Amino acid sequence: MNKPLLCKLLGLVAMLIGGSMAFSLPWALPVFGGDWQHEQEGFIGLIGSMIICFAVGTGLRYLGRNGSSQLFRKEAMAVVGLSWVLATVLGGLPYRLSGTYRAAGVRMNSVDAMFESQSGFSTTGATVLNELEDPALVPRCILFWRSSTHFLGGLGIIVLFVVILGQGSAGKALMRAEMPGPSHHSPQARMQHTAWVLFLIYVGLNATLTGLLLVEGLSLFDALCHAFGTMATGGFSTYNASVAHFATVPGLNGPLIEMTIVAFMFLAGTNFMLLYLVLILKPRGLLDDIEWRTYTAVIVVVTAMIVAFGLYHHDFDQCGADRDVIAVADGADQTDYSPPVGNAVRYGLFQVVSLMTTTGYCTDDFNQYNSFARGVLLLLMFVGGCAGSTGGGLKVIRHILFCKTLWLEVEQAFHPSVVRPLRLGGKPVEDQELRKNVLVYFGLILAIFTISWMLTITLEPNSTWTDHGHAVEHKLLDAATCVTATLNNIGPGLGIVGATKNYSNFSPASKILFTWLMMIGRLEIFVILVLFVPGFWRNQ
Amino acid sequence: MNKPLLCKLLGLVAMLIGGSMAFSLPWALPVFGGDWQHEQEGFIGLIGSMIICFAVGTGLRYLGRNGSSQLFRKEAMAVVGLSWVLATVLGGLPYRLSGTYRAAGVRMNSVDAMFESQSGFSTTGATVLNELEDPALVPRCILFWRSSTHFLGGLGIIVLFVVILGQGSAGKALMRAEMPGPSHHSPQARMQHTAWVLFLIYVGLNATLTGLLLVEGLSLFDALCHAFGTMATGGFSTYNASVAHFATVPGLNGPLIEMTIVAFMFLAGTNFMLLYLVLILKPRGLLDDIEWRTYTAVIVVVTAMIVAFGLYHHDFDQCGADRDVIAVADGADQTDYSPPVGNAVRYGLFQVVSLMTTTGYCTDDFNQYNSFARGVLLLLMFVGGCAGSTGGGLKVIRHILFCKTLWLEVEQAFHPSVVRPLRLGGKPVEDQELRKNVLVYFGLILAIFTISWMLTITLEPNSTWTDHGHAVEHKLLDAATCVTATLNNIGPGLGIVGATKNYSNFSPASKILFTWLMMIGRLEIFVILVLFVPGFWRNQ
Repeated sequence: MNKPLLCKLLGLVAMLIGGSMAFSLPWALPVFGGDWQHEQEGFIGLIGSMIICFAVGTGLRYLGRNGSSQLFRKEAMAVVGLSWVLATVLGGLPYRLSGTYRAAGVRMNSVDAMFESQSGFSTTGATVLNELEDPALVPRCILFWRSSTHFLGGLGIIVLFVVILGQGSAGKALMRAEMPGPSHHSPQARMQHTAWVLFLIYVGLNATLTGLLLVEGLSLFDALCHAFGTMATGGFSTYNASVAHFATVPGLNGPLIEMTIVAFMFLAGTNFMLLYLVLILKPRGLLDDIEWRTYTAVIVVVTAMIVAFGLYHHDFDQCGADRDVIAVADGADQTDYSPPVGNAVRYGLFQVVSLMTTTGYCTDDFNQYNSFARGVLLLLMFVGGCAGSTGGGLKVIRHILFCKTLWLEVEQAFHPSVVRPLRLGGKPVEDQELRKNVLVYFGLILAIFTISWMLTITLEPNSTWTDHGHAVEHKLLDAATCVTATLNNIGPGLGIVGATKNYSNFSPASKILFTWLMMIGRLEIFVILVLFVPGFWRNQ
Repeated sequence: MNKPLLCKLLGLVAMLIGGSMAFSLPWALPVFGGDWQHEQEGFIGLIGSMIICFAVGTGLRYLGRNGSSQLFRKEAMAVVGLSWVLATVLGGLPYRLSGTYRAAGVRMNSVDAMFESQSGFSTTGATVLNELEDPALVPRCILFWRSSTHFLGGLGIIVLFVVILGQGSAGKALMRAEMPGPSHHSPQARMQHTAWVLFLIYVGLNATLTGLLLVEGLSLFDALCHAFGTMATGGFSTYNASVAHFATVPGLNGPLIEMTIVAFMFLAGTNFMLLYLVLILKPRGLLDDIEWRTYTAVIVVVTAMIVAFGLYHHDFDQCGADRDVIAVADGADQTDYSPPVGNAVRYGLFQVVSLMTTTGYCTDDFNQYNSFARGVLLLLMFVGGCAGSTGGGLKVIRHILFCKTLWLEVEQAFHPSVVRPLRLGGKPVEDQELRKNVLVYFGLILAIFTISWMLTITLEPNSTWTDHGHAVEHKLLDAATCVTATLNNIGPGLGIVGATKNYSNFSPASKILFTWLMMIGRLEIFVILVLFVPGFWRNQ
């Protein structure tokens, strides 16, 4: 293990994080709409955090001043894993140093800060903050930093994908689209070219969505924060009601804003390599891609089923912000009434795309849907977006490979001598390694899920349920959805962490567990797990 | 596919089933305690069923009169799979032809009969019968047939294990103990020898337990039925309260009977090959076996945890038959009061051993335990007994191999070139095939579980919950436990199928699904799944 190089690169990461905090500072100033009285602490917290980041960065770079520049597989894994850990700690400083409030009268502790920070970087969007709209509790500049971590996390994933995951035969199969680039150059030059292209697409999509949301009437602050949350498939909003908020603001076209966000969540869950092919006018690359076709088909079919079952069970008679209204007052404005079918498509589609892409924005409380809808949305969380997107979950391609592998194995059970190749979009792929890797990945997810589920049930006292109006009988299911929603980087789950709830009331032990789960899920397991293998750190 | 041979062997199975029904006939006669007025229909139903079995058997043997006797792998799989299907249908005839009642006034339909039959043969013990103790609803001779299917199913599994599962490298690893036998003979002769030894151990243990239960005061009828249910890890009882019944009968020593059954459930979950080694005075084979040691350790550790958590949560303040008593009457007999610690060990151990071995006998309503206990018992259902036992579930050895495989894969993630061998009890095993097979098995269980869970939620109307005093919010969890309890051949689950409930109220569609799950789980998936692969039936 080349430790000096490790320090050098981690130092760079620390400085980059410190540098990015600068973009949150302006929102504290009155000229950008900040109320200085409330923003003061946030501003000072951010400055303090930047100083610490640069100090840590300088220290690490000094330790690594003699590092060579040869980056092997082991070092690459260590850099990614450790820089994510470092980012979690440093990214949590602004919350801690500004004394942000989790709820009225309750300041965020260190565990809360790390949870919120990891939730941002891993583009999960799970929060411990109960009240986002009061700058006396959460300053605007801190709220912007919170959304910025989504942007940075999404960027990290896009670049990471090229550097780490795109290696080896399994990585190739996950990437599929060989990137058109300067073909006579070294693999490293091509890799850099690919990383740049993906970076530009990501930033471009963020800018486009910000522009559209501005045109649709959002403030620059809201437009930027929601663009970050959407394109990173994160899910942090600046309003307590998440995206459902906009439908309640007079003068804003709620459905239009929602559908804009749906379209960009869909793009964020698409392989960015394929978006590049569309940009260079080769759209067949996208349309012929088996993963993207499956991804699109799942969204269409599941939405149709949720709409059908939801209408049958009257889930959509009242939706979104109306849902909390116990009874419609007599003589209420008739224009407020939406027919259930329209509601069903509008709200069904949004929740499906949001949960499938692992964004986690909500416009309706899907916890109140029928059991079929709740079950199928829970399963969607494990599907996730396409490989090479910012979406989390297991990725659509892994599910395709998993099903194909199992089917081939059943066929081979009675013909052990005949080995048939695995085909992807008609073409056979070099597969013995790939087949095993997919099975191992599912196996690890299963093991991590099961252990974390038991840990949550064991660590979390029953009072977390009973003290907040929830029945403790739901603990088994609720705990399972907490693990699902954090491991797959979604955010909301069912019951105690439903669309209208958050992770505020959990014990520190559970919050630490969830923080790890978000990191493990985001970095596709291995990069984090190997950090715990003693042999990994030995010089060999 | 050698179809004539298939018919010939299936004909033999049909005749064996018909023949075994004869043993249920005497229980209808007054001399064996039957009340002829109620037994008449059952007796006639059994006779009718026997006639049909022999007719089907004769027909099949006629069709297969020209079959050669060469049994290849494919034919062996087909025979096992199809004979299980045939047994389900034929074994259900006595329920149907005798007009047994599912509940007062509700006769069993064909789906009920097949469910109950499959539940017996697969040694699951899930039932649709609400009232076992009234011979006007369920005749004694039919009740005996019900328990007999456990005995036959357990026998089938023991023999099956030798013939099918003990083949190939994965099978060898599952069996591990090479059977000492006539070593200079052909593999087929050794296989026959092994099958005979296992058969004798199985019958011997059944006889021993019957004898013990007789000594402890049970009637011959009850002793036989409970021995069948125990040694096959089945779980059918002759009382509504299952084994908890005996503690309520004056003159019987409840705890002694319960501990006797615990001991034999434990033996039933042990690899029968290893029991043979003990019989020939080579007990080290048992004590050194990594699977048996893990199996024992899991039971001890989980029981200790259930006892500890249960005492903390006051789960054991009232237990077993006392649990339904809302308040202890003033001046109640003080001798009835058991201290919670004694209760905790007695009831905790019984439920743990019963669910871990996939027997499913109950002495207490574990659905009322704390969330930790409910969760951990649910997970135990997936563990199951040892390979080569009558226990269901995934088997302890598969979990050992699964964990070891995943650990090796994580270690290899940063060293792709170094392949380390998988070790079992210190010895390396030929493993590339084995590793993949274990992962495939877990993958298939995961896929089948997920699909069946969604199917149950979709097929089963909410009224199954709401009409019987259950909250529909528990549908997701309850459905998951139904699938768990049938796929792993346990019987009881949580909530709507908890220890004091049964499968009576489910719709026919769900009952058919559960019937398939019991069969798939019992025959370790492949034997059933390949029946649906078109290529399996082609002549090649």
